[in-house]
Amino acid sequence: MNLNVIKIGGNVINDAAKLSSFLQDFSKLQDPSILVHGGGKVATAIAAKLGVETTMIGGRRITDADTIDIVTMVYGGKINKGIVAQLQSLGCNAMGLTGADGAMVKAVKRPVKEIDYGFVGDVKKVNERLIHSLLEQGISPVFAPLSFSMEHGVLNTNADTMASEIASAMGALYEVKLIYCFEKKGVLRNITDDNSVIPEIDSTTYKELKADGKIFEGMIPKLDNCFDALDRGIKKVIICHADDLLSSVEKMTAGTRLIL
Amino acid sequence: MNLNVIKIGGNVINDAAKLSSFLQDFSKLQDPSILVHGGGKVATAIAAKLGVETTMIGGRRITDADTIDIVTMVYGGKINKGIVAQLQSLGCNAMGLTGADGAMVKAVKRPVKEIDYGFVGDVKKVNERLIHSLLEQGISPVFAPLSFSMEHGVLNTNADTMASEIASAMGALYEVKLIYCFEKKGVLRNITDDNSVIPEIDSTTYKELKADGKIFEGMIPKLDNCFDALDRGIKKVIICHADDLLSSVEKMTAGTRLIL
Repeated sequence: MNLNVIKIGGNVINDAAKLSSFLQDFSKLQDPSILVHGGGKVATAIAAKLGVETTMIGGRRITDADTIDIVTMVYGGKINKGIVAQLQSLGCNAMGLTGADGAMVKAVKRPVKEIDYGFVGDVKKVNERLIHSLLEQGISPVFAPLSFSMEHGVLNTNADTMASEIASAMGALYEVKLIYCFEKKGVLRNITDDNSVIPEIDSTTYKELKADGKIFEGMIPKLDNCFDALDRGIKKVIICHADDLLSSVEKMTAGTRLIL
Repeated sequence: MNLNVIKIGGNVINDAAKLSSFLQDFSKLQDPSILVHGGGKVATAIAAKLGVETTMIGGRRITDADTIDIVTMVYGGKINKGIVAQLQSLGCNAMGLTGADGAMVKAVKRPVKEIDYGFVGDVKKVNERLIHSLLEQGISPVFAPLSFSMEHGVLNTNADTMASEIASAMGALYEVKLIYCFEKKGVLRNITDDNSVIPEIDSTTYKELKADGKIFEGMIPKLDNCFDALDRGIKKVIICHADDLLSSVEKMTAGTRLIL
């Protein structure tokens, strides 16, 4: 049985028209689908209004006690329920979830080494049986990028990682396609040329492009997640523009397909 | 089959020690249980920090566009996921939900008469089958006081009403006990005497106490909800102190029991 695990990031979530168009496409997908969303920019804006300073190191949010409270509100409440309500209005039976709900995504708080990331979770166990039972009832789970530990409660987890962890776990029960939607048409050979999309990229090409400095900073953790998912048995991993969801997923005519 | 539908209000939610003690009791309940929480005071405080003024008329929040955004964050994110994470840590398999998730609580936006309540939902349909399927998987649903309409998205619904609507709908499948937990030991004959709890109150006594002015403002909608639930076939409705959950629910030795 096929399953799509689709990640959508902050640039789309921040733009009401783009998000609405993306969700319309999502609601048209034929196969059962899981959506994982980010939303870091919204959290940063609300934190600022509440007088909580945001600290980022290497693109990662340092999540102190005030910050986990804010991301729980913003990711788990505002963004998650906003997406769920829109999908429901489009006839897609969405259900918004965090890793704490039904203990669906268990994590450990990241051990402190050089950097103390605070309340950040490294995923250890996804409850694929419970997610499967929701999918079987025609529900489309919508995950906020929040995991959970018994000791520390709700934890902040990078949305790209959340998507690849969920995809890998669901791979035990489904033929999974993992799709990262963002604001570019795929992995670009030339970062200044939006049409230089590489249709297919393997780990050797990836290493070459990284060595040449052609793959820029934010793309590296994204691609590392992709290759990690491939290593863990996911057969199809795609990076594409949020506008190209249907053509990428159903026709495989857009975006970059990752292969081992 | 028995089912508890338990409502917990803002006075307990605002007090970390009281909430923790209440959730410990909740996690010990033998029968399957649904929790419905409020949280108006937290929403008011965060709205103030975000520069959004709160308007209440007759104890009801006027929910404009900014306010529905805030209560979605606060009820659906902060409070709901905080409770879920605590229950999970206590070994109770909680899942946090709003009416939008799985379209579980459909409502219509309240028609404007003398007062425009804004994005407030009057519940029309609870998806008791989906809630039942979660309960059958050992899940304790935890509902934020948010309903949903196809036209207007997430809507604000009074938590007492949310509890009685869910209880009434679940009555089709279960023997439901509906329990309102708050900061008093029950319905008091003398409002200045905390020990003047009326153990059992019927609709005739209720009318008399109301006529005598012995039942104060906030209790009237609460009791109206209770009698409404009784009218709709719920056999056991209890009002009790949050500290007395176990003795009220399992031994029926505390609180006020409502009867037709």
